[in-house]
Amino acid sequence: MIKISLLGYGNLGQHLARKLQELEGIQLVEIYSPSQKTDKSLNVPVINDLKNLSDADLYIAAVSDDAIAEISQKLPKDYTLVHTSGTVALDVLERQSKRGVFYPLQSFSKGHSVAFDQIPICLEANNAETMELLERLAAKISQKVVHINSQDRLNLHLGAVLVNNFANHLYTLSNHHLKQKGLSLDLLHPLILETAKKAVVIGPEWSQTGPAKRGDLKTIERHLGLIEDEQLKEMYNLLSDSIRAHTKSK
Amino acid sequence: MIKISLLGYGNLGQHLARKLQELEGIQLVEIYSPSQKTDKSLNVPVINDLKNLSDADLYIAAVSDDAIAEISQKLPKDYTLVHTSGTVALDVLERQSKRGVFYPLQSFSKGHSVAFDQIPICLEANNAETMELLERLAAKISQKVVHINSQDRLNLHLGAVLVNNFANHLYTLSNHHLKQKGLSLDLLHPLILETAKKAVVIGPEWSQTGPAKRGDLKTIERHLGLIEDEQLKEMYNLLSDSIRAHTKSK
Repeated sequence: MIKISLLGYGNLGQHLARKLQELEGIQLVEIYSPSQKTDKSLNVPVINDLKNLSDADLYIAAVSDDAIAEISQKLPKDYTLVHTSGTVALDVLERQSKRGVFYPLQSFSKGHSVAFDQIPICLEANNAETMELLERLAAKISQKVVHINSQDRLNLHLGAVLVNNFANHLYTLSNHHLKQKGLSLDLLHPLILETAKKAVVIGPEWSQTGPAKRGDLKTIERHLGLIEDEQLKEMYNLLSDSIRAHTKSK
Repeated sequence: MIKISLLGYGNLGQHLARKLQELEGIQLVEIYSPSQKTDKSLNVPVINDLKNLSDADLYIAAVSDDAIAEISQKLPKDYTLVHTSGTVALDVLERQSKRGVFYPLQSFSKGHSVAFDQIPICLEANNAETMELLERLAAKISQKVVHINSQDRLNLHLGAVLVNNFANHLYTLSNHHLKQKGLSLDLLHPLILETAKKAVVIGPEWSQTGPAKRGDLKTIERHLGLIEDEQLKEMYNLLSDSIRAHTKSK
């Protein structure tokens, strides 16, 4: 049995808490939530002061990046502490002699459940015992567990920002434009899903189509003529130029 | 029985030819392919001169945007002619008294099959008879058939460029960056798929996460420090600024 104390109850904390409760061989002993707002169906003790932490094998800090160092400072040196951030280095937890990182490579939103078994979990630890503990935990959650050091994790996180944050923002911009014109993003739903699927199956380099790829300046001009927002116009030009540069260099 | 002559055998033409051959009540009478390169398994006559066109109920010009007007000029006035472009206006076919548009809202790539029944097909025609013919055909291919005029179609096409061409290019840029750092896009595959799915299920406005959304300037600075390519740096800044602007205006 691995006894886990979960520190933080934001987007990731909430998804993780529900998942940990389902797992055999895992006991979620408490949730630290300063606001004390948790889902009562979880039936786990909630604390709002780090001084009241229970005994656990592993303390998982699922808090915002800026709060990680503070958590580390407030926890005893001999607690095994890991954080869940894509960007924060392992050594921010230097106060703890057994420290690690447990980073699920996914974007978590409230009210939208995710299939944890498909999420790559990136592990890092400064000692074999902690790594072995993290591996045991991660293997219960996901089929895809990898060892990633802090620098690689930061690069992966940047890659994730491009394919998630920025791609999603393009969906938002598309939705915004279509609404302005009395149209709905619904008609583009199959295209959104197929675009992601195709990139995964055949690779994005082989999936690229469209006016920029073809060097079809006439269509590009007509699109620019439709766009009212100056920032979107600038983005359209920059992305089209980048597609053209990548097309040529292939 | 609807007799169809398919003019053009590019990405869309190839997918459409295979689909048309499967359909009950449809006879694909010929394919016009100037290069005469077609898949022999199709078992359809191939012509390379528009003077040799057979008799058909419908001529579908699945050619590049620039070639549509030329096709229209070379075809008899009394042929029912439609094109398949997202950006070209119906009236480019003004020589034909019965004209229309049959625009499947999807990105087609060679060697990657798509489920036509999920693809919205946008129809336009200048007369009821042609519209009825297009509706009969479209209903055999897809569950989602809509009437869209030329101006709306152009706006939808712009929306499609954002969610497909540009999103896919972000995947390419992410892949490129990860490769430079000795990492693989494979680890981001689940995130790519989940990002698309979540935007479709809960909407992109509710799916946005990440440093720009949070106003996390520290992480943004660290990402910028990793990017070597100036164009990517510019894009990162512009997209982050746009996310922040949209976050504030909500």
